[in-house]
Amino acid sequence: MQSVRTAVIGATGYSGQELLHYLARHPAFRLGLVTSRQNAGEPLSKSVHGLPREMGQLVFVDAVPDFALAEQADLFFLAVPHGTAAPYAVALREGGKTVVDLSADFRTTDPAVYKEFYDHDHPAPALLKEAVYGIPEIHRERLKKTQLIAAPGCFPTSIILPLALFLRAGLIKPGSIVINSLSGVSGAGRKLEMRLLFGEVAENMYAYGVPKHRHLGEIEQELSLAAGEKVTVTFVPHLVPIYRGMLSTTAATLTRPQTDAELQAILQEAYGREHFVEVLEAPELPQARQVANSNRIQIAARVDARTNRLLLFSSVDNLGKGDASQAIQAANLACGRDEKLGLD
Amino acid sequence: MQSVRTAVIGATGYSGQELLHYLARHPAFRLGLVTSRQNAGEPLSKSVHGLPREMGQLVFVDAVPDFALAEQADLFFLAVPHGTAAPYAVALREGGKTVVDLSADFRTTDPAVYKEFYDHDHPAPALLKEAVYGIPEIHRERLKKTQLIAAPGCFPTSIILPLALFLRAGLIKPGSIVINSLSGVSGAGRKLEMRLLFGEVAENMYAYGVPKHRHLGEIEQELSLAAGEKVTVTFVPHLVPIYRGMLSTTAATLTRPQTDAELQAILQEAYGREHFVEVLEAPELPQARQVANSNRIQIAARVDARTNRLLLFSSVDNLGKGDASQAIQAANLACGRDEKLGLD
Amino acid sequence: MQSVRTAVIGATGYSGQELLHYLARHPAFRLGLVTSRQNAGEPLSKSVHGLPREMGQLVFVDAVPDFALAEQADLFFLAVPHGTAAPYAVALREGGKTVVDLSADFRTTDPAVYKEFYDHDHPAPALLKEAVYGIPEIHRERLKKTQLIAAPGCFPTSIILPLALFLRAGLIKPGSIVINSLSGVSGAGRKLEMRLLFGEVAENMYAYGVPKHRHLGEIEQELSLAAGEKVTVTFVPHLVPIYRGMLSTTAATLTRPQTDAELQAILQEAYGREHFVEVLEAPELPQARQVANSNRIQIAARVDARTNRLLLFSSVDNLGKGDASQAIQAANLACGRDEKLGLD
Amino acid sequence: MQSVRTAVIGATGYSGQELLHYLARHPAFRLGLVTSRQNAGEPLSKSVHGLPREMGQLVFVDAVPDFALAEQADLFFLAVPHGTAAPYAVALREGGKTVVDLSADFRTTDPAVYKEFYDHDHPAPALLKEAVYGIPEIHRERLKKTQLIAAPGCFPTSIILPLALFLRAGLIKPGSIVINSLSGVSGAGRKLEMRLLFGEVAENMYAYGVPKHRHLGEIEQELSLAAGEKVTVTFVPHLVPIYRGMLSTTAATLTRPQTDAELQAILQEAYGREHFVEVLEAPELPQARQVANSNRIQIAARVDARTNRLLLFSSVDNLGKGDASQAIQAANLACGRDEKLGLD
Repeated sequence: MQSVRTAVIGATGYSGQELLHYLARHPAFRLGLVTSRQNAGEPLSKSVHGLPREMGQLVFVDAVPDFALAEQADLFFLAVPHGTAAPYAVALREGGKTVVDLSADFRTTDPAVYKEFYDHDHPAPALLKEAVYGIPEIHRERLKKTQLIAAPGCFPTSIILPLALFLRAGLIKPGSIVINSLSGVSGAGRKLEMRLLFGEVAENMYAYGVPKHRHLGEIEQELSLAAGEKVTVTFVPHLVPIYRGMLSTTAATLTRPQTDAELQAILQEAYGREHFVEVLEAPELPQARQVANSNRIQIAARVDARTNRLLLFSSVDNLGKGDASQAIQAANLACGRDEKLGLD
Repeated sequence: MQSVRTAVIGATGYSGQELLHYLARHPAFRLGLVTSRQNAGEPLSKSVHGLPREMGQLVFVDAVPDFALAEQADLFFLAVPHGTAAPYAVALREGGKTVVDLSADFRTTDPAVYKEFYDHDHPAPALLKEAVYGIPEIHRERLKKTQLIAAPGCFPTSIILPLALFLRAGLIKPGSIVINSLSGVSGAGRKLEMRLLFGEVAENMYAYGVPKHRHLGEIEQELSLAAGEKVTVTFVPHLVPIYRGMLSTTAATLTRPQTDAELQAILQEAYGREHFVEVLEAPELPQARQVANSNRIQIAARVDARTNRLLLFSSVDNLGKGDASQAIQAANLACGRDEKLGLD
Repeated sequence: MQSVRTAVIGATGYSGQELLHYLARHPAFRLGLVTSRQNAGEPLSKSVHGLPREMGQLVFVDAVPDFALAEQADLFFLAVPHGTAAPYAVALREGGKTVVDLSADFRTTDPAVYKEFYDHDHPAPALLKEAVYGIPEIHRERLKKTQLIAAPGCFPTSIILPLALFLRAGLIKPGSIVINSLSGVSGAGRKLEMRLLFGEVAENMYAYGVPKHRHLGEIEQELSLAAGEKVTVTFVPHLVPIYRGMLSTTAATLTRPQTDAELQAILQEAYGREHFVEVLEAPELPQARQVANSNRIQIAARVDARTNRLLLFSSVDNLGKGDASQAIQAANLACGRDEKLGLD
Repeated sequence: MQSVRTAVIGATGYSGQELLHYLARHPAFRLGLVTSRQNAGEPLSKSVHGLPREMGQLVFVDAVPDFALAEQADLFFLAVPHGTAAPYAVALREGGKTVVDLSADFRTTDPAVYKEFYDHDHPAPALLKEAVYGIPEIHRERLKKTQLIAAPGCFPTSIILPLALFLRAGLIKPGSIVINSLSGVSGAGRKLEMRLLFGEVAENMYAYGVPKHRHLGEIEQELSLAAGEKVTVTFVPHLVPIYRGMLSTTAATLTRPQTDAELQAILQEAYGREHFVEVLEAPELPQARQVANSNRIQIAARVDARTNRLLLFSSVDNLGKGDASQAIQAANLACGRDEKLGLD
């Protein structure tokens, strides 16, 4: 099969750089174009370390979202902020190209939800209905047929993947869900903010973004889809002093008593054959380090019999399965390839 | 007033060492005896750094729990493991001395609860009824009259202090409580275990001890006391790569709607005059670094109006207000002193 | 004795905040004024955590270096950048006040050296001759008689203190000195720079500032003074992922063979009676953690007999003995107090 | 070309696990046997995370160094402690197999040097003469013809690679060399020692192993070889709180003045065509993060004109180019393959 001409729009943040590293070892996606306003004119190697020599010699270009851009590749990854991504998606989709958007612009299907969480009108509502939410383990068949992928946020992947199936099966009460997540600092992006200095983060940790973090929109959309009814959850993200990693712990009331063995069987049934999902056996619980630099997610379930709650645990690399590598997994599907390509 | 002859039993762990540092600046507790099986015969300065020169020259002795030991001081801090502490408490109480036990031996008043969580019979059930649980902000008057203080575990302080008052006021449903805590590594003690190596902890994090961590016994005891009924909670501790620090996030369903301002007023009413409790104003949330090396606890409350839940946040130094410095605060009360002595 | 009315000029950086924490427990320096352009009008407690309640209620003011400022206190600590400090020193010295400058403005006595390392003319050369370099263990008697103290840089303290005496005694060849230092991130200050983000510093380290770091000017000045001849050294600073701490390792060729015991005797003779200098006995070597949050310096010496070199090791808290606490130690002397006041 | 049946002897330490990860993506080395006394009978996946599923199902076996073992593979990596490795090498070489020893047993060609640094007689002196020191950039041709590779220690690679060529060219004085290295904690191995606990390492750093660290034997052997005379150096290793990474800074007196440009040209001439050597251009200096998880080494040189010294800087991943990946690079050569195989 032919290789796919690939472009990355915006590659100065942590997501963009991570994408470049995954693309460096992808056997079918041939990177030909990388854009960056800030680094335009410089070789990639100047700001992105560890790329193969040839790829490092590629030069950042500054590009606007237009038809000329669409000509230059067939697969485009958008690693620019929300709001900025949509115009690129419009131009590139008009040009008939496949777009994987790592921003939030196409994650929620309802423009009203977008406005609620992002404080401005959706910049391209007409495109919303063709976008597919990019968790392959949940939307695999739809991803095979789309040309517009909304790569999920880092928290949502870790939360939705283990939780949706229990809602779908009616095993937990939708109104009882309490989610706590721990995020590494790269999840906040590569921004010049005082709170992100080493001197402020080391030996520190705190909750933030409560009670209505932006990722709630997509989390509740996907959980509602699974439950077949509107689901509203409590979600508390925390920042911890690690670079990459994301851990989620979810508690929800069971609709009927379960044993650990029954929960394990349910997870195995759902995900036992999934290449990137690691269902842990007791007494193991997910650990950040065990999925770092990978597209894997670790999940585990336990019964809290004393309170009749289900406890769900998951771990992803917030730049991997929670971001760049999952975007590639979804792109593989949209391009008709083996979804594992370039990810092992 | 005269100074108090003070002893520390077992000072090779993180708790014991922290105690020594707090005692070094205490104006009334005069340290005269420090025991350690492991370091017996060596000066404190060899293994504990940063002590004043004179205190560093004190020599560790090996001591058994007997009458002769009781003669040597009037106030004893026990910083030995649970099970080991009780025989010391028995001998020292028989000698009429004041005992502050940092282990779990006297935290739960019901020996059956102790057995349930520690897997062996309580080693000194007769002493249980005189022990007072050492959170001064909750049991101040009883602490002034006791000679046996059960210093709380690190998780419980951070959880009980902000939560109990909402149960007492009937503002939350006792069955709806979900607690997630993040602990620094010193909380696990100074033990030779593979999982505690820097190489295993750095850039890592995970949940553990579910669904029935040992501290649940004392947490539920104190919450039940506040609620006036048996309270059972979901509690998920997590290990994160920091040395000292503990953060707790609690979610519970409100019995009637509240505003953030009402919650703030409740916290201010309860703790506004407490010297060591810092009630944060929005948008501030507790941070580990802001209470490190101190006896302070930061707390904050928020309404999650979408789900009608109360969210409580707290931060303590797990070796400070969660351990050694709170033990001194309680000891100050038991010795008839200002509870702030040596803690500012 | 009366307390000293004290002011801190510029307290938003790490140095200024550390100063506030030390002043909070100083029994004789009574803080009455704190300036900050950035935080003017806000209480200290908003940006500086862990201060006693009363001190936290003090409000930052914006102040220019004039006579009116000089009226407001008798002892001024300048925690503003080099270049900015000098005008304050001029105005305050004209007002007859005692000034402790934590910037580089008065560290080198020769304005040409200042210009060489700081790229602009010295802003107040007339004041240079009254300034005393603030290492009490070396310039104690002069510090007792000055009203203008140049608090040393963080690297220089760790380097000069153990090394100068060997030059003074003629035991090492002045041309043979090679110094490597490791600095925690707070040494770089609290600045919005990409390289200081947690995401860039964690799991990273590198040398920088070679071959002519700004601190070389004061290092070589003090070493030359000790040697009685011009000394030029190689100095390589490194950044490591810790918040506070500074370690220096110096190698120099011995003029005649020495044993470890002889070196130990020399250090003991020089510093055995110094309260803040901890001369370690073999096999101990200085560690960053053992002097954190203190005014102590750990030092050790070893012979490298195979190459006939002296090896010197030292550790300071770069915000403590390398900065704020040493400034207070020197100020104690200048104010006629016990130099240990507020530092134990 | 056929794949090579490969075995790893001892895979519970950090080196062994890193080897497994590199072998997992090696296209020609087919892992068939992994031994471990401690984990015998368990699948690799139980203790080594992130391996491909199939490889994770391989079961650890306990194996003694005998003829039967030699039958089971053609290429053996020894990742066991020094002293333990030699008997395996003897048995496997008798069986005609290719051996890559990651321990120190075959790094120094003179058994007297081995005894001097490792305190016991060399366990297999007869094999010493066929062993080749495994830095491909220096001993490439010899590595192509050997069946016994002594993979270098982590410090030596970072030191020898940039330094040897300056000795060979007579540009520095052999007696003037002072080396300071900073090592991540994984360099100390995965051992249950108090000093390696997170609680002891975090926010800490210190020099150790002076004046005669074990790696000096191999460092001086290779430098002497380059200089054509006996070279003795000063070497000070430091432990810093990172997991993986190694930085070395070397100072040496120039035999004649050089400019930065001349030094750069020398490095470019020597290493400009080397795939795994990254010669940095000013003002860049090597950084630990930029070579993490790779077989690359970053190097840079500067003149310290004020003291007429050469300054050399280098960075390697102490588990990568300083250990496991370099072992594979050397093995590729010994097996007649492209040395880059499996390393990009």
